[in-house]
Amino acid sequence: MDDATLVMTMLFDFFGDLLTEKQRDYFDLYHNEDLSLSEIAEKAGISRQGVYDIISRAEKTLASFEHKTGVVRRWIDMRAELEQAEEIARDMLRLTGNKGETANLAKELVRTLEGMKI
Amino acid sequence: MDDATLVMTMLFDFFGDLLTEKQRDYFDLYHNEDLSLSEIAEKAGISRQGVYDIISRAEKTLASFEHKTGVVRRWIDMRAELEQAEEIARDMLRLTGNKGETANLAKELVRTLEGMKI
Repeated sequence: MDDATLVMTMLFDFFGDLLTEKQRDYFDLYHNEDLSLSEIAEKAGISRQGVYDIISRAEKTLASFEHKTGVVRRWIDMRAELEQAEEIARDMLRLTGNKGETANLAKELVRTLEGMKI
Repeated sequence: MDDATLVMTMLFDFFGDLLTEKQRDYFDLYHNEDLSLSEIAEKAGISRQGVYDIISRAEKTLASFEHKTGVVRRWIDMRAELEQAEEIARDMLRLTGNKGETANLAKELVRTLEGMKI
């Protein structure tokens, strides 16, 4: 998943319920289900421009919530730090030669950190 | 910090900029600066009931954003998992007897995980 897609997915995940139903539906079809504007227009029985306007408004609303809260930016920073912590835990696991109590704890740590990424 | 205070602090931290300036100011004085309603009323030159109404509306707005996004709940879950990971890292550090390369990695891990808590 590239960075822009990750941001869109997380914005929708956090703030999707703040959109109107139509905005949410079209945004989801376009950004998550990967349908084209024309395909959504055909499904919905409205013009391609109409679909485009609704998705644009949804994107603006999501961007405005992000601007005011920084939720996605903070989550992405957290993810980067998690990955860093996970890498250290993997280094420790390698150092233990995969044996003994320290190895078990290192494995547990890797599992715990992996489970925290959304 | 008890749980209810942590939730209020985090709600304000994430969603404070979505409040009006007055709501934000009074909420901050009441929940973060620990002033009483009467003290805020005196400072602001309005009635105690007026201050109460504004803070109540702010709390309702914050609760509604949380209901729709689950940001604070997710962040608190994440914190609990971080503490769990930190505890495992401390156990590892103890096991290493604070010596050698594994101990250095364990220390780095504890520092990284500590730095992630907000």
